[in-house]
Amino acid sequence: MTTVEADVSSPLNPDQQAEIDALRSETRATLRPTVPELESILYEALPVLDHGFVRVIDYMGDDAAIVQAARTSYGRGTKRSRDDRGLINYLMRNWHTSPFEMCEIKLHVKLPIFVARQWIRHRTANVNEYSARYSILDREFYLPAPEQLKAQSSTNRQGRGEALTEDEAARVLDLLREDATRAYDHYEEMLNEAPDGSQLDEGRQGLARELARMNLPLSFYTQWYWKVDLHNLMHFLRLRADAHAQYEIRVYADAIVEQVMRRWVPMATAAFENYRLGSVQLSAKQLEVVKRMLAGEQVEREGTGISPAEWREMMATLGRD
Amino acid sequence: MTTVEADVSSPLNPDQQAEIDALRSETRATLRPTVPELESILYEALPVLDHGFVRVIDYMGDDAAIVQAARTSYGRGTKRSRDDRGLINYLMRNWHTSPFEMCEIKLHVKLPIFVARQWIRHRTANVNEYSARYSILDREFYLPAPEQLKAQSSTNRQGRGEALTEDEAARVLDLLREDATRAYDHYEEMLNEAPDGSQLDEGRQGLARELARMNLPLSFYTQWYWKVDLHNLMHFLRLRADAHAQYEIRVYADAIVEQVMRRWVPMATAAFENYRLGSVQLSAKQLEVVKRMLAGEQVEREGTGISPAEWREMMATLGRD
Amino acid sequence: MTTVEADVSSPLNPDQQAEIDALRSETRATLRPTVPELESILYEALPVLDHGFVRVIDYMGDDAAIVQAARTSYGRGTKRSRDDRGLINYLMRNWHTSPFEMCEIKLHVKLPIFVARQWIRHRTANVNEYSARYSILDREFYLPAPEQLKAQSSTNRQGRGEALTEDEAARVLDLLREDATRAYDHYEEMLNEAPDGSQLDEGRQGLARELARMNLPLSFYTQWYWKVDLHNLMHFLRLRADAHAQYEIRVYADAIVEQVMRRWVPMATAAFENYRLGSVQLSAKQLEVVKRMLAGEQVEREGTGISPAEWREMMATLGRD
Amino acid sequence: MTTVEADVSSPLNPDQQAEIDALRSETRATLRPTVPELESILYEALPVLDHGFVRVIDYMGDDAAIVQAARTSYGRGTKRSRDDRGLINYLMRNWHTSPFEMCEIKLHVKLPIFVARQWIRHRTANVNEYSARYSILDREFYLPAPEQLKAQSSTNRQGRGEALTEDEAARVLDLLREDATRAYDHYEEMLNEAPDGSQLDEGRQGLARELARMNLPLSFYTQWYWKVDLHNLMHFLRLRADAHAQYEIRVYADAIVEQVMRRWVPMATAAFENYRLGSVQLSAKQLEVVKRMLAGEQVEREGTGISPAEWREMMATLGRD
Repeated sequence: MTTVEADVSSPLNPDQQAEIDALRSETRATLRPTVPELESILYEALPVLDHGFVRVIDYMGDDAAIVQAARTSYGRGTKRSRDDRGLINYLMRNWHTSPFEMCEIKLHVKLPIFVARQWIRHRTANVNEYSARYSILDREFYLPAPEQLKAQSSTNRQGRGEALTEDEAARVLDLLREDATRAYDHYEEMLNEAPDGSQLDEGRQGLARELARMNLPLSFYTQWYWKVDLHNLMHFLRLRADAHAQYEIRVYADAIVEQVMRRWVPMATAAFENYRLGSVQLSAKQLEVVKRMLAGEQVEREGTGISPAEWREMMATLGRD
Repeated sequence: MTTVEADVSSPLNPDQQAEIDALRSETRATLRPTVPELESILYEALPVLDHGFVRVIDYMGDDAAIVQAARTSYGRGTKRSRDDRGLINYLMRNWHTSPFEMCEIKLHVKLPIFVARQWIRHRTANVNEYSARYSILDREFYLPAPEQLKAQSSTNRQGRGEALTEDEAARVLDLLREDATRAYDHYEEMLNEAPDGSQLDEGRQGLARELARMNLPLSFYTQWYWKVDLHNLMHFLRLRADAHAQYEIRVYADAIVEQVMRRWVPMATAAFENYRLGSVQLSAKQLEVVKRMLAGEQVEREGTGISPAEWREMMATLGRD
Repeated sequence: MTTVEADVSSPLNPDQQAEIDALRSETRATLRPTVPELESILYEALPVLDHGFVRVIDYMGDDAAIVQAARTSYGRGTKRSRDDRGLINYLMRNWHTSPFEMCEIKLHVKLPIFVARQWIRHRTANVNEYSARYSILDREFYLPAPEQLKAQSSTNRQGRGEALTEDEAARVLDLLREDATRAYDHYEEMLNEAPDGSQLDEGRQGLARELARMNLPLSFYTQWYWKVDLHNLMHFLRLRADAHAQYEIRVYADAIVEQVMRRWVPMATAAFENYRLGSVQLSAKQLEVVKRMLAGEQVEREGTGISPAEWREMMATLGRD
Repeated sequence: MTTVEADVSSPLNPDQQAEIDALRSETRATLRPTVPELESILYEALPVLDHGFVRVIDYMGDDAAIVQAARTSYGRGTKRSRDDRGLINYLMRNWHTSPFEMCEIKLHVKLPIFVARQWIRHRTANVNEYSARYSILDREFYLPAPEQLKAQSSTNRQGRGEALTEDEAARVLDLLREDATRAYDHYEEMLNEAPDGSQLDEGRQGLARELARMNLPLSFYTQWYWKVDLHNLMHFLRLRADAHAQYEIRVYADAIVEQVMRRWVPMATAAFENYRLGSVQLSAKQLEVVKRMLAGEQVEREGTGISPAEWREMMATLGRD
């Protein structure tokens, strides 16, 4: 798993931080289950990329709620912690997914538009996005860290390969920065309006927001409230925390696994890592090969019906390369 | 709206009530929004029909969370209560549905199987049903109150008409009771096992639970955890609290509107009643008629393109019958 | 995989067969892709269980449509058959699911109500069920073949174990048959109406259909139109054609794999069998064990973090028991 | 409804047109229902905006299929055309939505990214988008027709108001064109690769596609296969063919209503226009006002509980302004 970058400036302005501090200052009483570990970061912005973040806004349920739902119980559903862990492992292993749907989380996420376009492909979630028809976007765009600027992969048509040379990387960063800056300058000029609503030039009308926004590149940040149940969250994380996912969405997925999910539902997180994130699937043909190998046979690819690429991948997975 | 029947015996046994009391005895601290009105009935069984109930197990969000999501805000999102109400009305009126999706509720419902079969048609929800493959169902079946026993409607192919005569009603209740009782007796005999797991007859094996259950009629009670967001809950309630819905599901919908939703999100409930439950839709042709009538014209059905049945319904709606 | 029973009487009456024959007699011209193999059984009832069936009513797309969507192409998307097969395997192996969603199938299914209750849990599909509020159900209920009558499993709380003794099986069949027959007799009496709409007894009103149906046991047959995309169909089939699924739904899943899907999308079916139906998932911990075993180590369960039940299952899968 | 612009150059290149011609040259035989009116435009690109299109790739069902599903019939489901129309009107009027879900359509759409971002919010559909991680986007971006360049509305925070002056419009078009052109030049430079895959500059590596794309503005065109059932299509069209929808998505919705849906399901389209597109919803409070007005009363807004904005809108709708 990649590491979430740590040394970025806060993605919040002082007003935003003050609003968050106000939220965190007021404790209420509830009969519902609570998760103190998760409450400890509630509302805080967990930084991701250069200006993005993930904030936990609300949550419903905990590890015990999974157990409670699986047992359709009248009370807490919990017996002993060890039994709960065993049941959660059993449910995860056997794809009994509905008890995990009984936990829900609501996040506030700030992310580049090209990342948002991948993210939104996960349809079983609720989304409220900041509207660029209604409001003016901020002057914030994603600029990759130099070490993230990589060449097109020569083996994987949808991946990155080697790092760019220092010169080429510098040129790329200049182009990205200049084009984004100019695009935003022109966005403001077309709007004839600053983000605070003041008019720039009294003589002009200003283009409608819903039109002016089309000039902004996909590197600009947007933000949304995103609410999802734990089962569908894990489905998202399994695909987006994967090594084949684009780095810029993977860092969000990693931040959610490490900083949110592990605090919220530690037992489900452990089961998720064992049975999903770290698991491998053997096809029927691959299983045949493994059985023959375990029986002591020296197996050649020919005749197995497995393609060379798949064979290489499998042998790497099994530590046989 | 129909009235939820009140004078039924508690649908809970003492053990279940004790589990609920235990849940209600323990208050926790949280930074999340809470709704004291809803907490006051949390976990309690709200009785519906003769053995059914609705229990609120958990909830996420409140009226202010709708506003907060609509504004994608960093803080609570609330300005003044009056503004919140106005915004919620605006969102409801203009079908901006996604902010309502940001609230979520988890219910435990006990209901007859034929009601469950209608309920489950609402797909955008999470469900964990008590498993009759895994467990033994209780000896509990729905027996309508005598005044609910009505003849097939002569005008509506899927509705009820006049009440049955006293004799006919008595005969129906006898048949329903006897068949359900006998079916359960045979269910137990086939299982060769009591609900507590003890064997009835040492000499027999006992049929698998997943098979024996097929002998039970649709009047038997099942139960499930049902989790849904506020938008989809309102969609369910609009269709199932409607006069055309079958009485036995309508009483659940009514109980949820009156006893749950009104406590949870009072502003959204008021908007829901005005813009959904109590609203009418005028077709393009009907709108033309209303405009002509408002202009003082005496309008005849002929030539309007509106069918006689639709015309009658419209005139009744407009108070012109 | 279980075998779909063959020697049952036709689940159709002569009128229904005549309607189907009429549909099959009329060929039309289309520019859309067609699948002659599937057209050869279009509209026909494929028998399942004692009175059930699966009928293909319509379909959209074929193997090439998967390829076409994956390439977002303007034309047919096909290059050579070998390339298509390779791409379909690649998509299936790497969980690129959206191209499979581009194929759609519409089935007419007749099935016992307790099977329908499992089936409907798959939410991403379109359903139109025969309405027992509106119409009268037929006198048709499921009676298991004697060899299917099994005892509760002693090891699996939601499965079947050994076959019942002949005597016990006979007694079960008698109970199921008698209770279902009596329940339907009383259903008709309460309705005071035959399925053809004629009144039985002039002196009585007859109970509304929506109420009378509650007397029928879960063994009765219902029917519905069910429309689903290929991705979600495979998800359904993977869970329901599995050895852990209840026999009565598994025979429907098997019939769909063998008689429908294989005719419709043979390449996708082969990939589905290799990468889904016949595949196994190794957890992170299990993968460690397999790697150690392949490296020649004699591995003991202790210290692996794998539970005894999971260990046994894994060793059986790997052919090491 | 807005008019779809007609006089744009073909959005297809000769190769693409040749692929479409090939598809249209080959007729096949089928037993499925066909819609000759829709077949007449199958695969053709219906132009929308300056470079966009809608293409019908496949369809399932017709008006009769709605009727057939509503009746869960064995045969075609059709009696007489007049009965079919009446039933479809009844289903539409009473929100019996599932029979409409039994029809499905697959479209190939080329559209600006900012339009795609609105479109994708409709989650109940299947999507396969052209991948800018895998492939290189074409040099095609949306440039509004001058008469579409309008100022921000002064009354509606998310709408357009008056047309821009000629000078201001010209300046806006220059900015949009220049920024898009420069962004694409730099995209190509960063990629170091032309759309045909040839390298531009041998000395450089070229940035990965998944990164370089972030420089492109939201005005650039993307394309996707989009498959949806008729019920969800109508939901999309009701919101996006509405006067409050942004012009750039409305022209797609209009093209689909007029050129696709009307050909495909003419009876459902007529019902859709009467009961959805042209309908109005009266809230409970508005209904009270209308009833009082129809009874001859002169009603003032005060005391009705209706806000001034809502009152104005209602009076305009009723032709009373």
